Amino acid sequence: MSEDKINELTEIIKWDEKGLVPCVVQDSKTNEVLMLAYMNKEALTKTIVTKKAHYYSRSRQKIWLKGEESGHNQIVKNIYIDCDGDTILLVVDQNVGACHTGYYSCFYRLFDNGLKIVGRKVFEESEVYKKTK
Amino acid sequence: MSEDKINELTEIIKWDEKGLVPCVVQDSKTNEVLMLAYMNKEALTKTIVTKKAHYYSRSRQKIWLKGEESGHNQIVKNIYIDCDGDTILLVVDQNVGACHTGYYSCFYRLFDNGLKIVGRKVFEESEVYKKTK
Repeated sequence: MSEDKINELTEIIKWDEKGLVPCVVQDSKTNEVLMLAYMNKEALTKTIVTKKAHYYSRSRQKIWLKGEESGHNQIVKNIYIDCDGDTILLVVDQNVGACHTGYYSCFYRLFDNGLKIVGRKVFEESEVYKKTK
Repeated sequence: MSEDKINELTEIIKWDEKGLVPCVVQDSKTNEVLMLAYMNKEALTKTIVTKKAHYYSRSRQKIWLKGEESGHNQIVKNIYIDCDGDTILLVVDQNVGACHTGYYSCFYRLFDNGLKIVGRKVFEESEVYKKTK
């Protein structure tokens, strides 16, 4: 994709005061909402160019390739932008699971007269991250 | 629902420096992601108690009942919280359409070698909002 086409998107986005935009991530196969992350312009550009989801980690203050440690990357199928240009929706093929806790989706807790775990566990956090944590 | 149960949720949420939390809204029937909005504690409490989605408008700086002007309200079916407690997922029955532009979802523009409108229009903005705009 040409730089001009990428700029068409990045210029329409209303980046917040920190240069970030929230990004909703949805599973292409199950339609589950997997997570919410943040992108800066560089993360979005890398995502478009590589077709692998890149985010900006607010806690670590750096660009982050989703799955760089776990291998659980996200292959980008579609990118949408909302009416106000202040939110991105990424539809992805999720490898193994999206959540660092081992659940497929980060939204594994339902509030139903108290919090209940309803998500499905797809890997053991301690096994996947044991080398570095 | 008891106040204790509601507090169980509001106390686990990591409200940002403005007292807000982003809220992804998903359609209960089609699984489409409809919008992203923000809630403060009062908006979340009203949402739980009334089962109608309430948000906090950052531009108008006030609580906002979704559909208060258009009638296009959202009946809440499920509330999820993510692993970090910093995002809410609301699954709703959407009345008519979620977006103020007349599209069913706010994410009606696909980025595919340029921006393309792919969403479905469900009402005419000028008709719905003509009384007040």
